Amino acid sequence: MRAASGYPLMPEWLYWRAQATPGRLALIAGGRRLSFAELAAEADRMARRLAALGLEPGDRLATLLPNGLEAAVVPHAVSRLGLVLVPLNVRLAPSELAWQLADCGARWLLAAPGTLDLARGALEELAGCRLVTTEPLEPGVPSLVELPEAKAPLRREVDLGQVHTIVYTSGTTGRPKGALLTYGNHWWSALGSAMNLGALPSDCWLVCLPLFHVGGLSILFRSVISGFAALVHERFDPVAVNQAIDAEGVTLLSVVSTMLQRMLEARGERAYPSTLRCVLLGGGPAPRPLLETCARLGLPVAQTYGLTETASQVATLAPEDALRKLGSAGRPLYPNRVRIVTEEGEEARPGEVGEILVRGPIVTPGYLNRPEATAAAVRDGWLRTGDLGYLDEEGYLYVVDRREDLVVSGGENVYPAEVEAALLAHPAVAEAVVVGVPDPEWGQRVVAAVRLVAGATVSAGELHAWCRQRLAGYKVPKEIRIVAELPRNATGKLLRRAVRGWWEPGA
Amino acid sequence: MRAASGYPLMPEWLYWRAQATPGRLALIAGGRRLSFAELAAEADRMARRLAALGLEPGDRLATLLPNGLEAAVVPHAVSRLGLVLVPLNVRLAPSELAWQLADCGARWLLAAPGTLDLARGALEELAGCRLVTTEPLEPGVPSLVELPEAKAPLRREVDLGQVHTIVYTSGTTGRPKGALLTYGNHWWSALGSAMNLGALPSDCWLVCLPLFHVGGLSILFRSVISGFAALVHERFDPVAVNQAIDAEGVTLLSVVSTMLQRMLEARGERAYPSTLRCVLLGGGPAPRPLLETCARLGLPVAQTYGLTETASQVATLAPEDALRKLGSAGRPLYPNRVRIVTEEGEEARPGEVGEILVRGPIVTPGYLNRPEATAAAVRDGWLRTGDLGYLDEEGYLYVVDRREDLVVSGGENVYPAEVEAALLAHPAVAEAVVVGVPDPEWGQRVVAAVRLVAGATVSAGELHAWCRQRLAGYKVPKEIRIVAELPRNATGKLLRRAVRGWWEPGA
Repeated sequence: MRAASGYPLMPEWLYWRAQATPGRLALIAGGRRLSFAELAAEADRMARRLAALGLEPGDRLATLLPNGLEAAVVPHAVSRLGLVLVPLNVRLAPSELAWQLADCGARWLLAAPGTLDLARGALEELAGCRLVTTEPLEPGVPSLVELPEAKAPLRREVDLGQVHTIVYTSGTTGRPKGALLTYGNHWWSALGSAMNLGALPSDCWLVCLPLFHVGGLSILFRSVISGFAALVHERFDPVAVNQAIDAEGVTLLSVVSTMLQRMLEARGERAYPSTLRCVLLGGGPAPRPLLETCARLGLPVAQTYGLTETASQVATLAPEDALRKLGSAGRPLYPNRVRIVTEEGEEARPGEVGEILVRGPIVTPGYLNRPEATAAAVRDGWLRTGDLGYLDEEGYLYVVDRREDLVVSGGENVYPAEVEAALLAHPAVAEAVVVGVPDPEWGQRVVAAVRLVAGATVSAGELHAWCRQRLAGYKVPKEIRIVAELPRNATGKLLRRAVRGWWEPGA
Repeated sequence: MRAASGYPLMPEWLYWRAQATPGRLALIAGGRRLSFAELAAEADRMARRLAALGLEPGDRLATLLPNGLEAAVVPHAVSRLGLVLVPLNVRLAPSELAWQLADCGARWLLAAPGTLDLARGALEELAGCRLVTTEPLEPGVPSLVELPEAKAPLRREVDLGQVHTIVYTSGTTGRPKGALLTYGNHWWSALGSAMNLGALPSDCWLVCLPLFHVGGLSILFRSVISGFAALVHERFDPVAVNQAIDAEGVTLLSVVSTMLQRMLEARGERAYPSTLRCVLLGGGPAPRPLLETCARLGLPVAQTYGLTETASQVATLAPEDALRKLGSAGRPLYPNRVRIVTEEGEEARPGEVGEILVRGPIVTPGYLNRPEATAAAVRDGWLRTGDLGYLDEEGYLYVVDRREDLVVSGGENVYPAEVEAALLAHPAVAEAVVVGVPDPEWGQRVVAAVRLVAGATVSAGELHAWCRQRLAGYKVPKEIRIVAELPRNATGKLLRRAVRGWWEPGA
């Protein structure tokens, strides 16, 4: 029962679940309703078709899929075949995707009708990675529907120490890093969630977050491990979400603040049904007025703090503490631990703000091809999140701010360093500062200030177009100011706060 | 994070739970309602008082407790201090208890007002084991209430490989064996149950099985691991159980067939509320008419097959399969496996009856002081249960009969060999055969046939009294026939079936 890695071998989750509760509802996606037996059959078929491409255990399969049936099945097909899934963000620019595809060494990129052009763009100058589509789209490009089912051996067991997923996360260095997530990371994440929020055979968890982020992906693992249904929406539509809660038996829901805000706006003051037992609210500290509105409407919000590097939830406020600990992200999920360390490297006292550190089986073993970044992030088993927060007297976590330089816009993380690098690549730009400023709809929006090279001329509009070529839309600064001088302190250090103040007087 | 045993160290369950959801209802017992924080405080206090007796990590603490607050707290106190719990059956005779106390080397026996005389009787001729009571009962006998709280270090982590409990189970050899149950056995048992039946923060599991059997004890672990309440009844009273389901929010319930039968009789045809989401039915194959009555009344019965050696459930029928697979005990709980082996030692085909074998992290590491019995029971990781059953085409387990010689009376296991040994100890008895015969109330009842030593005279009444001295009441034969000759086949082998036929014509 022990694998080569020293971790125990365990029955593959969907394979097991399809035998344990074959007839139970598993997935609603792409207009279809699948039982666990049907979902397992879909996953097996997809695994055998991927095998027909020559994909073998350990190979990396990149996907560029909007939410839908294929995006919900492929994580299980990957488990059955022993591949490593690299779910790419469909909002990235072709050059960003090309970089990630090259970094992970993917041999195949799976695209859908809606992402075909983007995939083509990403693969244009990339040797060694080929295109496969979900359905027949172009002659000469294989499609899953048409591929034969190879007689590949499918796995009945998984090794908790093996990597299942590589999820790219941007970083302060300007280049995204591929966080490795093992079967064990996903297993413990699902277990910790069930031990906190509970799980029932009759539960139905609505997925309106992208399945290429851990916030969405992790719901699929919870579904097969605990044995309840996942309802996948193709995109976030507040009216459709409200409708699913009212009429389709949704009991759990994962959202970020801006989504919740829009749901409430679309609905007015009409109460939600009591069948909705938990709204898991992630993506950064929630505005207090929003939490108070939810409390007033009786909406059971469980605020959570999670990271790509921890396969989603680190800490989540248990439903019954929603009012007593309003604004807290709760306590760490079993059996993980959270510490706060001050700037001086000392253990913070209760109430004292410092960096949030996480330890436990949800923590990534590291970043692909980044031994130094891994060593810097995970020391003695403790993940340094870079985020700021404190623990109260009872050990409840309050996240004060994501790491100082991080911008969270509509639930997507934007690292200023990456946007600054794109601006600096323009020959006319001498210096660039990117910051996030408060935005009523998206939480924060990205803005930039640049100083030009002496004698150069370029308009803000031209720089905007330049960025659009190189960056995902949500990373492109909504406003770019061209200034004569950037604010610095006496020692010459750039004052980001002062830049932010240009948009946010009084901050 | 790895312990000396090679198993991971994990946060002690109640310690963790009390921090994660301190205010949530944990336990209703002995007229008190305790939150998880209060339950943890009770367990800590009890642990420190036990430490004041000189009990140290690894020491065995025997308990002789009826269901109640102390019996529900002591398993957690034992975890916090690192003791090993030996919960003794309060229905045993003093000589049976004395044997088990000596076998496990317990230094202290914890008794309650209702079991004081029994405990005194057991300890009468036993050196090295001392009496402690839950409350002050006699001068010179320490009581938990009066003991000081020692400054003992309490454990915050548990080692899944360490033994938490020793539960005595009778066997064919006539002497009970102490099955060792580790933290890992209990952990995986609770997890497998939650992954099958679900678990909600608002659940309330009624405990009307004895807490000295795994069927009752395991509910306490599920409660702290999944974070829901346990409601402990002091004894099984069908009217009180019905009342608790109607008015006290009971959502889950563990019973054996005779208990369920009596609940239905006490209730008539009145429907149960839909808040009762699962009746876990164990203790041997259930009569089909009972299952059909429950199906008709809409009572959500989940038939289960469990053993002391597996920390309770091995396989349980998922609620939605109750009708489709009526009479089945379902599929094994994650991640355990079940096989059926024929008398010839071969893998049985679907539908073919053979011995049930179980493998997985719920299986006991073995019996205390019984290397040979352990080696015979667990081979290559597979536990030989001795029970007979088959798997259908879909892998659902049907238990045909408990091991041929086992009598299950009102959910208690009686091994004929043990009762025969007691009869044979009487000087007038030359031969004895004990069998179980169908009983409308208790499932089976114990009866005996004996042949006397030539020339000896003794009445059935005298033999009955003799047994009462030596055996728990439920093991004492309800009828004893004195016969001239016991039935044997041509080779001289005793024909148990023929003896059974005397009580059960046509069997």
